[in-house]
Amino acid sequence: MKKEFVQEITGMNDDFAQWYTDVVTKAELVDYSSVRGSMIIRPYGYALWENIKSELDKRIKETGHENVYMPLFIPESLLQKEKDHIEGFAPEVAWVTHGGDEKLTERLCVRPTSEVLFGEHFKNIIHSYRDLPKLYNQWANVVRWEKTTRPFLRTLEFLWQEGHTCHETDEDAHEETVKMLKVYAEICEKVLAIPVIMGQKTEKEKFAGAKYTYTIESLMHDGKALQSGTSHHLGDGFAKAFGIQFLDREGKQQYVQQTSWGFTTRIIGAMIMVHGDDRGLVVPPMVAPTQLMIVPIAQHKEGVLDYAYDLKNRLSKSIRVGIDASDKKPGWKFNEYEMKGIPLRLEVGPRDIEQGQVILARRDTGEKITVPVEGIEEKVRSILLDIQESLLQKAKDHREEKTSIAQNLLEFKETITQHAGFIKAMWCGDQACEDQIKEETGATSRCMPFEQEKVGESCVCCGKEAEQLVYWAKAY
Amino acid sequence: MKKEFVQEITGMNDDFAQWYTDVVTKAELVDYSSVRGSMIIRPYGYALWENIKSELDKRIKETGHENVYMPLFIPESLLQKEKDHIEGFAPEVAWVTHGGDEKLTERLCVRPTSEVLFGEHFKNIIHSYRDLPKLYNQWANVVRWEKTTRPFLRTLEFLWQEGHTCHETDEDAHEETVKMLKVYAEICEKVLAIPVIMGQKTEKEKFAGAKYTYTIESLMHDGKALQSGTSHHLGDGFAKAFGIQFLDREGKQQYVQQTSWGFTTRIIGAMIMVHGDDRGLVVPPMVAPTQLMIVPIAQHKEGVLDYAYDLKNRLSKSIRVGIDASDKKPGWKFNEYEMKGIPLRLEVGPRDIEQGQVILARRDTGEKITVPVEGIEEKVRSILLDIQESLLQKAKDHREEKTSIAQNLLEFKETITQHAGFIKAMWCGDQACEDQIKEETGATSRCMPFEQEKVGESCVCCGKEAEQLVYWAKAY
Repeated sequence: MKKEFVQEITGMNDDFAQWYTDVVTKAELVDYSSVRGSMIIRPYGYALWENIKSELDKRIKETGHENVYMPLFIPESLLQKEKDHIEGFAPEVAWVTHGGDEKLTERLCVRPTSEVLFGEHFKNIIHSYRDLPKLYNQWANVVRWEKTTRPFLRTLEFLWQEGHTCHETDEDAHEETVKMLKVYAEICEKVLAIPVIMGQKTEKEKFAGAKYTYTIESLMHDGKALQSGTSHHLGDGFAKAFGIQFLDREGKQQYVQQTSWGFTTRIIGAMIMVHGDDRGLVVPPMVAPTQLMIVPIAQHKEGVLDYAYDLKNRLSKSIRVGIDASDKKPGWKFNEYEMKGIPLRLEVGPRDIEQGQVILARRDTGEKITVPVEGIEEKVRSILLDIQESLLQKAKDHREEKTSIAQNLLEFKETITQHAGFIKAMWCGDQACEDQIKEETGATSRCMPFEQEKVGESCVCCGKEAEQLVYWAKAY
Repeated sequence: MKKEFVQEITGMNDDFAQWYTDVVTKAELVDYSSVRGSMIIRPYGYALWENIKSELDKRIKETGHENVYMPLFIPESLLQKEKDHIEGFAPEVAWVTHGGDEKLTERLCVRPTSEVLFGEHFKNIIHSYRDLPKLYNQWANVVRWEKTTRPFLRTLEFLWQEGHTCHETDEDAHEETVKMLKVYAEICEKVLAIPVIMGQKTEKEKFAGAKYTYTIESLMHDGKALQSGTSHHLGDGFAKAFGIQFLDREGKQQYVQQTSWGFTTRIIGAMIMVHGDDRGLVVPPMVAPTQLMIVPIAQHKEGVLDYAYDLKNRLSKSIRVGIDASDKKPGWKFNEYEMKGIPLRLEVGPRDIEQGQVILARRDTGEKITVPVEGIEEKVRSILLDIQESLLQKAKDHREEKTSIAQNLLEFKETITQHAGFIKAMWCGDQACEDQIKEETGATSRCMPFEQEKVGESCVCCGKEAEQLVYWAKAY
């Protein structure tokens, strides 16, 4: 754990995958265990998740949703009630077949998502339009039997929230789907400084059992895309499968219109791959468990530690602040907290105290400035705000740089080979073209963006007339 | 859901078990699902859990612990590493044998508790006394394959936190074990108004794999006891099984000393059975999702609703307040919020407005008082405090009434038959006596209380000399 030397990590441009693995382990976000494909989320990683969760939970409640908790297990027969849903999920669920020594008469799957459990419950509690809308959310762990896994990005088990709502009309459900996608976009952009493209998934890429799926897509440092949150209009498919009916305002029986939406620990992987650099993690101040770390210099000298602790107490009234008064060398501490991506470092030694000043070092730019200790709270707060904004701007610029336009398949292939990133291209709407693009380029359709523009006249694959702009990319 | 008539529940003295079931369903805490033995925790039940969790999490962090997250699954070989532990848990775990279509080469159990996962991780991250203590906690779901289940009290799956810590010395681990038991006791008494007896479990009743187990025991309305939280000194048993060693201050390799401690959704069952009455739930103000509910009277009259909403805004600055402005009759609303155990009801109608007053009705005593609207915040706050204290006092008095002393087995049997509750009796320390008491009376040893007293000279069962006071009771 506490090694007394500088920890080297692989350069991100040398081997991005190895860089990622180095960062998640050396910044002590995760550890591996003997459970294949599962991760241990260590204190620093979990504190990040708690901060993200708290920001999201607040917004989920502010938009009128209530938290509930559904069972972990789903009887096989229940999972099978909605045909598209079981087809999509059956290949990737874990099956419980024994309880203690007893073989079960019916297998139970470990929830990969909870539509069917909510479906059964909604049928019990919804009878009239007066019971609508029902706006529920749960924070839970889910399991999907993935073959290849990577911490945060794709794991057998992950943590998430899943929203499940019922509405009187198709329009109401549509509004909910959009509203919650926008909440996710806000969490990404305002809280995590990750810019996203909002749009709709193609039929091929939509959620198993949904009418349509909205998504937010972000772009990583290496030019690969990452689906960062999805919101589904479920229509009345589950309602019909589970018999979720209500007496409407005219006294007629109707099926409810449903939505579901999810946001996962995967976003921590996005945060790492959007903001990280060759010195390790870079954490946006809004979610940083420690926003500023105080490193006393020549701390054995009289008065230094007392002064540093006083500063800590002052600052802790307005920000999350830490202090490292251990006997490690300052240089070691600098490396450690740079690796952990702590947004600001404050250095203070005997001469600084004499001169009424401290040194502030920004993690994102590496910039070091000397500032008067008077008014330090205000100064720190404004720098943290600036870091938060700069990270978002930098990520936007990076995405801009890595976004290209392609008019035909040849151009598409050349571009994606030379210049990994988003490709904006027109699409005729035919799944055959989508399949061919994937096969020939490795890129998948990420979304049909809400903000449409006409970057060409014809489908990038077949050349037929096309109205639809699609973002394409290789993806995690 | 919203039935337009008064909901009747079974009287608690007629059929306590049925009363409990009526309360948990009609107060909308839980719903059943097609998953045997699992419960759906509905918004009102989950909001209670969130409040309890937040109070406990705060104290867990204040005492220096960090939250982490371990995998849900445990490979069978890992579970088998500590002999007593696997013996204790094997009969009650759920086994995953298939992932998708593929049969697993090794079965995975769904965690019943996470000692072995923490054990494996601790071995990886602990090397020196400088790495100690490690003070970890996780909030998680766990599964135990119970035959008979009841909402909150005993379910196949439940929510809890489990603390896992490593220390340099036996003494340090002992202190931790006591410290966390006291945190649990504080949550019970100060937050949930549930008085508890702190003590040690007998060898027979201790946790599988522990050196010793401390417990808090509470007494329900019907005179049955409920184990409300446990804290285990694990000694070095898991450390030896997993090889968790550290270089001590003298440069020698030592095994760490460990603790683990858990607190679960079960406590909601205790809250119900300690405070509830024939009109339903009674929720202590400190955990009540809604502490005061405003019911406007003659709300169609001009000005009433505006006035009521103004009041709500005023009060919501200091307490959790709700308002029911639906078109249901006030009497219906009174019943509904009494069933849900909301601590205070505020009624306000045209005449009250004229006279500058409101009516406050206490859920616990049924008392109704008219108070001036001026200074209402202070009044409400002081009544809520009084309710919180009264509930604890009432529960203490009830426990006192239901606690008896027995000197021999005949007395023990007679007492427990006529007067369900705690029985204080001396015990020689022989497990044969413990077994015999259980067989003949149905009561189990709840704990050897920290506060010992000599209520007799000889063992209540065999009559031999006895030094040990034990609390006995029939238990959930």
